[in-house]
Amino acid sequence: MRFIAETTTDGVTERLFTVEGIDGTPDDAPGAVWSPAGADGPRPLVLLGHGGGGHSTHPSVLARARRYVTGSGYAAAALDMPGWGGRPTPPEYGPFNAEIDGLSAEGKPLGDAFARRGVVAAELAVPEWRAALSWLLDQDWIGPGSPVGYWGVSLGTAVGLPLAAAEPKITAAVLGLMGHETLAGDAARLTVPVEFLLQWDDEVVPRDSGLALFDAIGSAEKTLHANPGGHADVPGFETAGSERFFARHLAPAAPG
Amino acid sequence: MRFIAETTTDGVTERLFTVEGIDGTPDDAPGAVWSPAGADGPRPLVLLGHGGGGHSTHPSVLARARRYVTGSGYAAAALDMPGWGGRPTPPEYGPFNAEIDGLSAEGKPLGDAFARRGVVAAELAVPEWRAALSWLLDQDWIGPGSPVGYWGVSLGTAVGLPLAAAEPKITAAVLGLMGHETLAGDAARLTVPVEFLLQWDDEVVPRDSGLALFDAIGSAEKTLHANPGGHADVPGFETAGSERFFARHLAPAAPG
Repeated sequence: MRFIAETTTDGVTERLFTVEGIDGTPDDAPGAVWSPAGADGPRPLVLLGHGGGGHSTHPSVLARARRYVTGSGYAAAALDMPGWGGRPTPPEYGPFNAEIDGLSAEGKPLGDAFARRGVVAAELAVPEWRAALSWLLDQDWIGPGSPVGYWGVSLGTAVGLPLAAAEPKITAAVLGLMGHETLAGDAARLTVPVEFLLQWDDEVVPRDSGLALFDAIGSAEKTLHANPGGHADVPGFETAGSERFFARHLAPAAPG
Repeated sequence: MRFIAETTTDGVTERLFTVEGIDGTPDDAPGAVWSPAGADGPRPLVLLGHGGGGHSTHPSVLARARRYVTGSGYAAAALDMPGWGGRPTPPEYGPFNAEIDGLSAEGKPLGDAFARRGVVAAELAVPEWRAALSWLLDQDWIGPGSPVGYWGVSLGTAVGLPLAAAEPKITAAVLGLMGHETLAGDAARLTVPVEFLLQWDDEVVPRDSGLALFDAIGSAEKTLHANPGGHADVPGFETAGSERFFARHLAPAAPG
């Protein structure tokens, strides 16, 4: 892991970094971490898992990171998922991508192939996220032992839910826009508070499958936020909703 | 309608009032309205519909009213539902109460009888709420044309959902803990933003029935908040969630 660039804009310092290929992923994973300008001392960290078509510095990721930094004083960090953000398409995606292309051409729902590709993405990406997280927590402007949240829906949940199930440093997670078929086992192992976003008319994830995944989550505190509209139509007020969820669960670490 | 008592405690003025029996309800409906001490000029009003076992000045209603008044500067008002809070049991409840008593004695879910009694409660109570609302909006510390919210779950939704469907002065509603069997028709007529609370393990309202009622709501903006636990286990953080919902939808009326 190494930093490769640093810029500060409007009170937010952005550091780009690289996670060297590990555990079978041949290419490096580009990442970015944002913090208040001049920050030192411990603060909560929120990991941001982008969706399909996104990447670690996609405008939607940047906007969310900026709100966490300027509104809450947190640090935020994102990684490019394998096959996104300029990373080469892993050969394991081949059959799924062919199926997804075919379904798209026929105007059919992608749910199943989309979910099964997500399993492969998680296998590749979870070790990268865990390595990056350990390294980020060693930075003195985040700090070991700081509370860690995860926010990611759709592809961000395909990777983030197994990540949150495997990584005990993650203490709260906003997930959603995925179904239960490929994720129920990991969901049952979750113990941290979860806010789960579901789109009532999701054309990618059938409603019953999303409800079943919420049902499968093992955490004692889990809260479902469902709204009308399709996969990409999560209403803007849920952005503030996620911030309040993290405010409840990521109490700032004690100074010093 | 007439005021019968006024007290001010810790910055909140409470006025008790009476809605004289109308439209077939032979007895008067006791009510209470809370506002900031010394308030004059228009402000949003939130109507608070109590649940079964509650009444207009139940501690849970008082606590919520106080938050709206001191936190948001709103007025809040509540009425005793027919048959609650010392009001005589309407004879129309007789067969339902007998059935509910029998089901309770057998430890069975109350859903159906509970819902059908709610239909009768709404027929009796909706005219009382509408009369009270018109009169309250004439008070110069609330004001005609002020935005009006409704908050009520369980019995508060059995009455409040038909009320919100019938009363165009209501501009946003928090509802929940009821099923679709008796309320789907009124739900389809709703047009105002709705936040709907559902308990995932509700022993009174089957999960699928609650989800079907959310589905039936006609409003373009509706948001479902579902949480683990039984009928009485709505988590405390939903109190603040409802406040933010009203903050989004009950913009203060212009002064003057």
